[in-house]
Amino acid sequence: MTFPTLSRGQVQQLLVEQSAKYVKLQQAHLKLDLTRGKPSSAQLDLSNGLLSLPGDDYKDASGTDTRNYGGLTGLAGLREIFGEIMQVPVDQMIAGDNASLALMHDTLVFALLHGTVDSLKPWCQEGAIKFICPVPGYDRHFSICQEYGIEMIPVELNDDGPDMAAVRGLVADPAVKGMWLVPTYGNPSGSVVSEAIAAELAAMETAAPDFRIMWDNAYAVHHLTDQHTKTADILGMCYASGHPNRPMIYASTSKITFAGSGVPFMGGSEANIAWYLKHLAKRTIGPDKINQLRHLRFLKDVDGVHALMDRHRMILAPKFSMVGEILRSRLGGLEVATWTEPKGGYFVSLDTVDGLASRVVKLAGEAGIAMTPAGAAFPYGKDPRDRNIRIAPTFPALAELEVAIDGLATCVLVAAAEQALAS
Amino acid sequence: MTFPTLSRGQVQQLLVEQSAKYVKLQQAHLKLDLTRGKPSSAQLDLSNGLLSLPGDDYKDASGTDTRNYGGLTGLAGLREIFGEIMQVPVDQMIAGDNASLALMHDTLVFALLHGTVDSLKPWCQEGAIKFICPVPGYDRHFSICQEYGIEMIPVELNDDGPDMAAVRGLVADPAVKGMWLVPTYGNPSGSVVSEAIAAELAAMETAAPDFRIMWDNAYAVHHLTDQHTKTADILGMCYASGHPNRPMIYASTSKITFAGSGVPFMGGSEANIAWYLKHLAKRTIGPDKINQLRHLRFLKDVDGVHALMDRHRMILAPKFSMVGEILRSRLGGLEVATWTEPKGGYFVSLDTVDGLASRVVKLAGEAGIAMTPAGAAFPYGKDPRDRNIRIAPTFPALAELEVAIDGLATCVLVAAAEQALAS
Repeated sequence: MTFPTLSRGQVQQLLVEQSAKYVKLQQAHLKLDLTRGKPSSAQLDLSNGLLSLPGDDYKDASGTDTRNYGGLTGLAGLREIFGEIMQVPVDQMIAGDNASLALMHDTLVFALLHGTVDSLKPWCQEGAIKFICPVPGYDRHFSICQEYGIEMIPVELNDDGPDMAAVRGLVADPAVKGMWLVPTYGNPSGSVVSEAIAAELAAMETAAPDFRIMWDNAYAVHHLTDQHTKTADILGMCYASGHPNRPMIYASTSKITFAGSGVPFMGGSEANIAWYLKHLAKRTIGPDKINQLRHLRFLKDVDGVHALMDRHRMILAPKFSMVGEILRSRLGGLEVATWTEPKGGYFVSLDTVDGLASRVVKLAGEAGIAMTPAGAAFPYGKDPRDRNIRIAPTFPALAELEVAIDGLATCVLVAAAEQALAS
Repeated sequence: MTFPTLSRGQVQQLLVEQSAKYVKLQQAHLKLDLTRGKPSSAQLDLSNGLLSLPGDDYKDASGTDTRNYGGLTGLAGLREIFGEIMQVPVDQMIAGDNASLALMHDTLVFALLHGTVDSLKPWCQEGAIKFICPVPGYDRHFSICQEYGIEMIPVELNDDGPDMAAVRGLVADPAVKGMWLVPTYGNPSGSVVSEAIAAELAAMETAAPDFRIMWDNAYAVHHLTDQHTKTADILGMCYASGHPNRPMIYASTSKITFAGSGVPFMGGSEANIAWYLKHLAKRTIGPDKINQLRHLRFLKDVDGVHALMDRHRMILAPKFSMVGEILRSRLGGLEVATWTEPKGGYFVSLDTVDGLASRVVKLAGEAGIAMTPAGAAFPYGKDPRDRNIRIAPTFPALAELEVAIDGLATCVLVAAAEQALAS
């Protein structure tokens, strides 16, 4: 009994039933928020040890007084931990202030105003420049491009990475200066860039000599199963392929420790890091080293990071399981939507049949369930098929999440029935 | 017995004496650093209470969980304290991450790439643009201009502010888009912009509709005497004169609490703050609110800030006194140099007779006394009279400072005698 096979009468009957549920939902005066990938209080509690650190001992292992100025690259001890996780030599790593988004933003600003080490001139002095945007993707990546007038070209993101036929075609255009990519547990689809596709991204010829892959490895250690998915070593691959300056690699502890008070990292070739530091030196004398010391003392080493992430997983895996169960039970077999069951990361990506997403998000909002606006995961906020809905299950408590996802399923069914009757 | 009245023989005699002292200095194998305005360990110790804060209570007065994302403007409680100090309404204040230099840098980057609220187009799309730079001034201000190709025009900084005749002439040029100013206890001269000059800066007509005063009030509460010098209320004055968007106002706790881990602030008109936040929102989800809460708990209120600054003064005032005493005793009455005796701030500015500064800094360096490069306080590092030397007395312990300043005086005398004999 899939949706397309229902008779008009059956659809009318379904609309009556689901509308009744929807009215009840509205009467419950909910105020639930599935909009952003925010850690829950229970997750943040896992890092409360940070709140009293570093205590009286403010010197790092090298004897640096972390309270004073200096040290543009950030504390070596912390860079060692995340260099291992990010597969970047510690000397080619920068630890910054509290947001990897800011490091990505500033990378593009420096490229716009100065050009990269491989650029003939500042990007802002070129004609129109373009970025490849695998979709669905992270809205804040796209906002940076929009802010600076960088034209965004969507390409399909498959389970194993971007559609390489499309990418190969696009990079033949010298105006295409780069691409965004969340390699592991992509936001929102959960897709993982395979070794083969990463190798091809590293090796492909690009018309622009200063083509950059913005490799945002935000969820490198954010596993939802026993399987520790390996991220492709894009830096090594790019060195091997003779394009060492191609990847700019980012990560942060925002979803490991505290979302607003973590430490972000950036890695890349020697030349890229020297370039970034040269420009960064005009902006700041150095990062918040005390917060870096605090993280170093708390996390201790790579094993410490993984142990902490295991505790996150114990909180998160049941939420993701429940989302899957509810969607299966309410929408399974109806051919009205598909959704991801990610092995890591922070999101479930729900695709309705074409043309429903905006209506579903509107219905949900009017029932007190705030969803990310439909289209948010696409450049310029425009989903050409109006089908993608990003679900962020991490923040609400399990009981609230249950109500919200069940309500969302109701909204999908109402919207699908409306659509069927209107056609 | 001033230097110009000495006979050649007397100068030769003086050079022999001072050279002997200089040789002893070299034999002491010193390693002293007077280069940067860094707080000393004793000053940093005053804020060690921060090292274990906020502790378990991570919510601010409004109930915000400071551990999570959000809150682009920063914590209201902390903005209230510094709004009062900076004379800016709390709603027109932003509290950021750890460096006011970064806020200034980003203000100019946003102006370059987008234009200000009063600009017809992005500054980077105009022809050459220019900034007025009162000298001597802060080298890191000038580095930002140099980084982005903004032409710097020096004007004399007097005890009561910039030479207004020069400023009035320059702002008739529409390419002159702004000026730097440290209004209180200027770096390095210690000068304080008077009410009259501030009022004139607020009221003057400028050819550029988007002229900006970068009002870096870094030393607002950094008094070295009982006298709490009032900073002119530039924002109020600019509103009163019909130019509310003219001033961009900055301050930070870098030299109140911890130099690398403080909180910076920015204030301005409603329109300027909305403009900045709009662009900032593309760069970050919010600042490190835990560090802001930490500061709020530690400083408590405006009185708490002043009480802490009194303790800094007890450490710093003797150092500045000693610098003055040594310079008076070694160089007084010789007409070979003048120096400031500032009522606040972080520097003593020493002017030798013309043409000596580079040689003095070189001699000092070769005797193990690191000084900021001669010319550092001037655009492009070029002091046209080669006379200004910036002394940063805060970091060394009193005994080391004594040796360093005495050694510096020796270098001045050696260089002056060399110069007299060469002419």
